[in-house]
Amino acid sequence: MTDDTLPLTPDYDAWPIDADLDAVSFTPRLVTVRWSDGRVSRYHSIWLRENAGDETTVNPATRERILDLSALPAWPEVVEAEIDAAGALCVTFAPEDRRLRFHPGWLRANDYDNATDPEAPLVTVTTWQGGPGEGPDTLDASGLLDTDPASAAEEAILAPALESVLGKGLVRLRGLPTTPGSLAAIAQRIGPIRDTNFGGLFNVKAKPDPDSNAYTAIALPPHTDLPTREYHPGLQMLHCLENSVEGGQAVMLDGFAVAEALRERDPEAFATLTRVRWCYANTARTTDYVWFEPMIRLDARGELLEVRIADFLRGPLQTAFEDVEPAYEALMTLQRLLRDPAFAIRFTYAPGDLVIFDNRRLLHARDAFEGDSGHRWLQGCYMERDEIRSRYRMVQRARRQRRVSATV
Amino acid sequence: MTDDTLPLTPDYDAWPIDADLDAVSFTPRLVTVRWSDGRVSRYHSIWLRENAGDETTVNPATRERILDLSALPAWPEVVEAEIDAAGALCVTFAPEDRRLRFHPGWLRANDYDNATDPEAPLVTVTTWQGGPGEGPDTLDASGLLDTDPASAAEEAILAPALESVLGKGLVRLRGLPTTPGSLAAIAQRIGPIRDTNFGGLFNVKAKPDPDSNAYTAIALPPHTDLPTREYHPGLQMLHCLENSVEGGQAVMLDGFAVAEALRERDPEAFATLTRVRWCYANTARTTDYVWFEPMIRLDARGELLEVRIADFLRGPLQTAFEDVEPAYEALMTLQRLLRDPAFAIRFTYAPGDLVIFDNRRLLHARDAFEGDSGHRWLQGCYMERDEIRSRYRMVQRARRQRRVSATV
Repeated sequence: MTDDTLPLTPDYDAWPIDADLDAVSFTPRLVTVRWSDGRVSRYHSIWLRENAGDETTVNPATRERILDLSALPAWPEVVEAEIDAAGALCVTFAPEDRRLRFHPGWLRANDYDNATDPEAPLVTVTTWQGGPGEGPDTLDASGLLDTDPASAAEEAILAPALESVLGKGLVRLRGLPTTPGSLAAIAQRIGPIRDTNFGGLFNVKAKPDPDSNAYTAIALPPHTDLPTREYHPGLQMLHCLENSVEGGQAVMLDGFAVAEALRERDPEAFATLTRVRWCYANTARTTDYVWFEPMIRLDARGELLEVRIADFLRGPLQTAFEDVEPAYEALMTLQRLLRDPAFAIRFTYAPGDLVIFDNRRLLHARDAFEGDSGHRWLQGCYMERDEIRSRYRMVQRARRQRRVSATV
Repeated sequence: MTDDTLPLTPDYDAWPIDADLDAVSFTPRLVTVRWSDGRVSRYHSIWLRENAGDETTVNPATRERILDLSALPAWPEVVEAEIDAAGALCVTFAPEDRRLRFHPGWLRANDYDNATDPEAPLVTVTTWQGGPGEGPDTLDASGLLDTDPASAAEEAILAPALESVLGKGLVRLRGLPTTPGSLAAIAQRIGPIRDTNFGGLFNVKAKPDPDSNAYTAIALPPHTDLPTREYHPGLQMLHCLENSVEGGQAVMLDGFAVAEALRERDPEAFATLTRVRWCYANTARTTDYVWFEPMIRLDARGELLEVRIADFLRGPLQTAFEDVEPAYEALMTLQRLLRDPAFAIRFTYAPGDLVIFDNRRLLHARDAFEGDSGHRWLQGCYMERDEIRSRYRMVQRARRQRRVSATV
């Protein structure tokens, strides 16, 4: 490699150059650069050393790190730093006496010195209310299975759908096939399905000898699925194959909106539900899942992380004696909020509809239906939120790749 | 149902009666019972009402709750409580004027008033050191696939294996088939496989165009798999089909033992690693997984919850500028501990071996091997810890069922 070309980055992503490196200075443990737009960024020597993209640091075949930092003879120090003819940052490290080059687009994108929130969500999260006339973001996806995987045509359909799920926790795609099992091919466009004891694809219909209230015709209260798991599924997909029954309307609520309303109206109940660990249990004939967790979980900053609510999958509360009555009082306050129609959107599934929603944020429910008035058949599956984020990062990478190509 | 038979419990579990109800007293919101061994237990009226096993509370077909507590006309109060001829607790609730019966075995097992730790693990967790001569718990499982699922013969093989995984995070089963793909049938004896972008079953062997360092012949440092996921897999299984290479020894460490040693020797480094959120990234050709999390996670009591360590799957650290050097210092202290042979067990895979380990607790590594000295082929899969706990609860239920049968 000569200095005429930009260096490899330590990963497979695309890094457009929005600003050039104008100046560089250094001390043994710190490199400071000034960008063409005036920004100043500092990088620690050890951070640069570990994140180099050369073949002593990264396996070029996998782009995974091979450097063992603690095997270096000493803490890496900078003995020289400059900007080369290709616009890359070149740093020489002691005691290795190794000169490594850093891509300016990659450096800028990983500017931790100026980052306000490196963990910011890919899409801004907005909570929403429901009420009459409100419905889910709805997109025509009739051509999806005819597109090539990872093509621009697929991206044109998927990208707005992924944005709705990431931002609002919910999207409805319409015009998909009604062939039983086609959900597997649709899901695969995003990522692998999370299998459970209910199967990779499960059939939601009234059936004899049901092993879940979901497989009856009774109403289901607002809930998240599989709260009985250490990590309940991040995403759920429900795909309508048939729907000719009376009733059985779908009801969905933004659990984050409900939780924020509870925080505002009854802070004590909210605090109780973030603290008391309920027992979630599905003690069935051949399986026995149990997990303890609060109904509302917050991150270190007090922001909502997830909700875990399903009255029909709670086992006996096992908590401190003096917490039992306050816990039930808080639960009933929440249950009353969950019945407030202001939070709910209601819609009727049409064959070919697919609803994708965040199962750790949204609550779904359904009205009772008349089992003998027609047929109601949904197929469902679970997936992890990682998959939708990975797929959306690939959309973003493709967009960056086009910008890189446009400037070359 | 008459008072001569014990009432339905709200679930499908088995509840042996180890003590009889001797006396009962009540106030409107509390029932107090005395057991034949002298124990006194209190139950809140609302807790009893919600956990009844009758048909107004639980759907008898699914044993899932149908009662909506907040739809009751008022907070349930006790107007009568007695012990009936069958030994059950009978409580009459106002304002419903409903008489409900509670199974004494179930009541005793859910005695939250006297519970010391309702969330106690199914099997006591013991951390372990390694060193020369140490190895994993090893069991002969040669007959496993010939047993009937959920039979006593299957239980005899699986129960001790599950106990090792739950308690020590690791077990080695020997004598299993070496047919490619047979891992799927073996895993199914415990629960469903967790699929990922690497496939339901993945092949660990040196291959051309590898998309992971695992698929090369290079050494791998101690790590947990898929730290790039919001919830990295709870269990991993590695099944040896062939192994005739020079080198490639398996190395395993108890991440909890290493973390506890770090806590004792360098509390500041330990605290840093529980606080700083590292970036885990697998920015590959067609997928892009990123997650931020501390390397060591503690529960609310300060006990170890999980470790997330994989140097080759860390992206660029994105944290507060002043945390960068302390974070790397703490990391290198941990890396040096991870190289201490006192923590490691080493073993050579034989065809037919299956290692099952807790991927959020154990670290696994491997020595480099000579790719052309023979063949080394492992098949692997992931699973959630929920599955192994569910399977083990079914073992416990079967044992309780035998005790119930023995007394009837």
